[in-house]
Amino acid sequence: MNYYVMTLFPDMIMSGLDTSIIGKAREKGLLSLNAIDIRDFTTDKHRHVDDYPYGGGAGMVMQAQPVYDCYKHVINLINERSHGQQALESSCNENVEKPRVIFMTPTGKTFNQDMAKELAKEDNLVFLCGHYEGIDRRVLDRIVTDEVSIGDFVLTGGELPAMVMIDAISRHIPGVLNNDISAETETFTDNLLEYPQYTRPEVWDGEQVPPVLLTGHHANIEKWRREQSLLLTREKRPDLFEKVELTKKDKKFLADIDKK
Amino acid sequence: MNYYVMTLFPDMIMSGLDTSIIGKAREKGLLSLNAIDIRDFTTDKHRHVDDYPYGGGAGMVMQAQPVYDCYKHVINLINERSHGQQALESSCNENVEKPRVIFMTPTGKTFNQDMAKELAKEDNLVFLCGHYEGIDRRVLDRIVTDEVSIGDFVLTGGELPAMVMIDAISRHIPGVLNNDISAETETFTDNLLEYPQYTRPEVWDGEQVPPVLLTGHHANIEKWRREQSLLLTREKRPDLFEKVELTKKDKKFLADIDKK
Repeated sequence: MNYYVMTLFPDMIMSGLDTSIIGKAREKGLLSLNAIDIRDFTTDKHRHVDDYPYGGGAGMVMQAQPVYDCYKHVINLINERSHGQQALESSCNENVEKPRVIFMTPTGKTFNQDMAKELAKEDNLVFLCGHYEGIDRRVLDRIVTDEVSIGDFVLTGGELPAMVMIDAISRHIPGVLNNDISAETETFTDNLLEYPQYTRPEVWDGEQVPPVLLTGHHANIEKWRREQSLLLTREKRPDLFEKVELTKKDKKFLADIDKK
Repeated sequence: MNYYVMTLFPDMIMSGLDTSIIGKAREKGLLSLNAIDIRDFTTDKHRHVDDYPYGGGAGMVMQAQPVYDCYKHVINLINERSHGQQALESSCNENVEKPRVIFMTPTGKTFNQDMAKELAKEDNLVFLCGHYEGIDRRVLDRIVTDEVSIGDFVLTGGELPAMVMIDAISRHIPGVLNNDISAETETFTDNLLEYPQYTRPEVWDGEQVPPVLLTGHHANIEKWRREQSLLLTREKRPDLFEKVELTKKDKKFLADIDKK
């Protein structure tokens, strides 16, 4: 997987994803992270990339030209990487690969674990991070394939959400997590929240670990964890709980709890 | 507002929030950002903060002790700041201020714009960022006041979501945005998505700005923008559209569109 992030703050992208699993995955050659500075493509002598919105209003709008020229540079990088120099020379024709271009915007489709899994299958992903009051709509209509939001809140720019997406997507690329099973047994994979975790010491500040976890009895531990997940999900996320496929045992356990 | 982030990656927090409006707001003295390294509070000679989970399973779990000692340090910092040295000396008694402590977890309550506004009213906010497979439940039960998720996806650690929350919350602190109106006119404040934006040049690569925006006729521009927002919200976010308070004019406009 090669990530290309079009941004006004390339250092933020590189440092923010360096300390996580992404850093290790890059060292292993499982993915590459490329942050490209949109400002490098401005033709304005003061290196401005924004201007006042037509029709008035607060804030500034990013201009079409530097964003589009940055995009064309990314397309060249992708084709150079996958087809060598030849592709670069023929980049005007229709044979060039068109990657998915994700624009981070609060008005986009809401990102979730299924989208992360789906996007992890791509060879290249391009992220476009806006700032100020937005980006000129003409260039968005020209290049963007997916408008995505990470939630119903407003942020200063697209950088943090792009980093969030890259982190979540990368976990689904084979080899990125130490243990391939991890991503599958995590929260959301069966619509159940994860059970509570405990580690040493056995007694911390007067509080004991739940005794069943110390028995070494795997079936009982699994049973306890499943029950904790069921209770937690039912209490905290009734919307997820509705989608859980309950076994006969699950139903009996919950019915018994409700009687008490 | 003083933010305290308990983390294993303090550099990531500081650099990731430095380039945005947060950096400027810190310079203006409107807020402070303090990243505290949980690893500094380990009593393990190898500086380990994690251990195997009781009951087995993949991954590691963060131990209660370093997290709790880090938390006590943060409480001292907060009380020192607000009451001076005296408070520090009497920090055992009940008079100390107890801040909200937000634990970033996919099983938490979903963060949104209303929560951002509400949290912006606090004097202090503490964020606890987990890593590995989680944190020992005993310390979470002891110190955490709010379990929060930014969405239905799994991330490597709590740092990126904490940064996302800090960015979104800070926009509601008076003086942080250049224009106080900005936060209020943004996406979501009336459940409508924002209208498309355009800036110079008037014709870019053969594409013209919508002519109404060039007329200088404010009432017509407002009308056009409202209509674009209505169409966009109805198409992309029917869930939000249901909550929009439609005026008579809105209803007529939409009915006319549907006839065509």
